[in-house]
Amino acid sequence: MGTTQLESVPEPKYWHLKTVLTEALDSEFSVGEILPNERDLAARFGVARATLRQALEQLELEGRLHRRRGVGTTVAPPRMGVAVGTDQHAWPGGPEDAWRPVDCALAVPPAAVAEALRTGRDESVHIVRRSRVSRGQPVAAELLYIPASSVPDLSAIDAPSATARARAVLRELQRLELERQENTVELGSAGAEDARELDRLPGAPVLVVTTRFIAEGRTAALSVATYRADTCRLTFGDFGGVEIHHGPQRRAS
Amino acid sequence: MGTTQLESVPEPKYWHLKTVLTEALDSEFSVGEILPNERDLAARFGVARATLRQALEQLELEGRLHRRRGVGTTVAPPRMGVAVGTDQHAWPGGPEDAWRPVDCALAVPPAAVAEALRTGRDESVHIVRRSRVSRGQPVAAELLYIPASSVPDLSAIDAPSATARARAVLRELQRLELERQENTVELGSAGAEDARELDRLPGAPVLVVTTRFIAEGRTAALSVATYRADTCRLTFGDFGGVEIHHGPQRRAS
Repeated sequence: MGTTQLESVPEPKYWHLKTVLTEALDSEFSVGEILPNERDLAARFGVARATLRQALEQLELEGRLHRRRGVGTTVAPPRMGVAVGTDQHAWPGGPEDAWRPVDCALAVPPAAVAEALRTGRDESVHIVRRSRVSRGQPVAAELLYIPASSVPDLSAIDAPSATARARAVLRELQRLELERQENTVELGSAGAEDARELDRLPGAPVLVVTTRFIAEGRTAALSVATYRADTCRLTFGDFGGVEIHHGPQRRAS
Repeated sequence: MGTTQLESVPEPKYWHLKTVLTEALDSEFSVGEILPNERDLAARFGVARATLRQALEQLELEGRLHRRRGVGTTVAPPRMGVAVGTDQHAWPGGPEDAWRPVDCALAVPPAAVAEALRTGRDESVHIVRRSRVSRGQPVAAELLYIPASSVPDLSAIDAPSATARARAVLRELQRLELERQENTVELGSAGAEDARELDRLPGAPVLVVTTRFIAEGRTAALSVATYRADTCRLTFGDFGGVEIHHGPQRRAS
């Protein structure tokens, strides 16, 4: 942690500006406040607008700023802790579930999903689309893939609404005994449909959580959920109470 | 999943280009191959260079491309699955640990860390810096904060090397009985020191994993680890065998 090592790293101009801006955010601005426009900010800190934009992008990645068309740049509240896979033994759609079913269709899944589910290349599966809202804000969108073999007793779904169809599939799925869940998290970008549900522009960074639901020794269902990376901190296990705000919290010490 | 809803989303030009580029990557290029330069690519797809750059940024977010100064843009291999918090009952530094200690210092941690550890504002803690290498590549950098109260029997560390000091602290920590770990994952950007260790530019997107190690009813140690978001897919639980490649896997179906 010596400064010698740090100094050997050439620090880009926007990186230094980011540090200065962070201090200004802490001392001069409150949550929700709109920042001055880019021209004024660039003038105040004596930097080119391109440098300013890079620094603002960094702060957006770290969840310190929100940038929205038509509104401008505002100071972000601390990220919300959103529980993921906390109950290892709960099926989707159970009583404690934070997700709301939106749609249900029978269609051929992407190849990688078919591989994980061991369904045939052209075999249709139930695809339940769900959304998750926390504190009044959309935080995640999900596609849940359920092969017909996981819901063998499902009778023809003639429910009038997409939501009712989704509930019927989930109810059948819950008859299986769930062994465990397995989760992966990676960085992705919001597709057009996700972007609309999450109230973001297409391409916005998202955290993609893939969950395998294991029952009877095989993957009985697969969920691909995209969480807003700007407002969410995913929690695994019960992380109750402690809030680590605003990104890495790593400073030379 | 009707197309009606999809059509109501205005699709930016770079988004459409991204889809076209993805197909080109799948059919024409192999992993590690260097893409043509931006001017040639923009000409081939008939778009402005700014549009091309946005599309390349998306593909980088999704882990499909690597962009490096002096090398150019190459087709990325599938992301590596990196296990996080799989053994809920293992302390850092145990025999199965994938991390290598690099440094050890006694210093005041950031305020949010002090709060989680319930140490005083100006109280120094042991800060062990570690790095994680997978398949010969640096994948993560970590700061591990350990209050003096968690290693009460630690004698004065007069070990000559930083690595030996780190090992001494971890050895003492392992005397406590670990109750469980709690993990959070969020998006962040690499600081200068992390960037150097991860072989990235400062500001590169990283997945920040914060782990609380709970012993005797309190947080006995806190780890803040930054994983390369371009090359890593974090796995929770034993996700062995199944590889879901390349991001969201969400297509209109």
